[in-house]
Amino acid sequence: MTDPMFAATPEPPYFAVIFTSLRAGSRKAGSGDGYEPVAERMRAIAADQPGFLGMESVRADDGFGITVSYWSSEEAIAAWKAHAEHQLAQAAGRRTWYADFQLRIAKVTRAYGKSRA
Amino acid sequence: MTDPMFAATPEPPYFAVIFTSLRAGSRKAGSGDGYEPVAERMRAIAADQPGFLGMESVRADDGFGITVSYWSSEEAIAAWKAHAEHQLAQAAGRRTWYADFQLRIAKVTRAYGKSRA
Repeated sequence: MTDPMFAATPEPPYFAVIFTSLRAGSRKAGSGDGYEPVAERMRAIAADQPGFLGMESVRADDGFGITVSYWSSEEAIAAWKAHAEHQLAQAAGRRTWYADFQLRIAKVTRAYGKSRA
Repeated sequence: MTDPMFAATPEPPYFAVIFTSLRAGSRKAGSGDGYEPVAERMRAIAADQPGFLGMESVRADDGFGITVSYWSSEEAIAAWKAHAEHQLAQAAGRRTWYADFQLRIAKVTRAYGKSRA
């Protein structure tokens, strides 16, 4: 999980990548398939990309997870997708780590929270 | 968790409500604050609303959760927000169940998955 849990995003509009995934074999951290260190590194690299605004991520014990990352533009999302080390991780995810996944790109138009509703 | 885990959404465009929340006291199911049966009923009622396309939801042991619901239009989202029983649940969520939350409304413009990438 990222720290802090909630992404401190600016006022909309901005963009979101909604990534829902099921780990292969419902694996969790420490399952020995090399996922965790790469996932951790991807989170760290993503946070350094131009246009990165924040990330929120949860995975349950059954292996199903949702990660939402926030970006200032669609170009920033495309650049992160094309990042060389991220491309290697994407290939491993597709081949080994995820039994299934869905990725959706969306434009956030409105937002509110408990404290600023 | 909803069943199936992955929402069977149509081709974009459609709309998403990204709801990230932290349960008060990092509570989980069965904590006795009345959350679980209401959450379950809200999921069931939401699924019957016009324009509902699907839902994906995860909550971790530390009480942080992400629920993404998908809708055919912004009007459908507004109608669900205004639903009388849902309004009561929203008030209880704000008052009691959630230590904090963020809600974002977004237009999904692109989507792909492992099997249809």
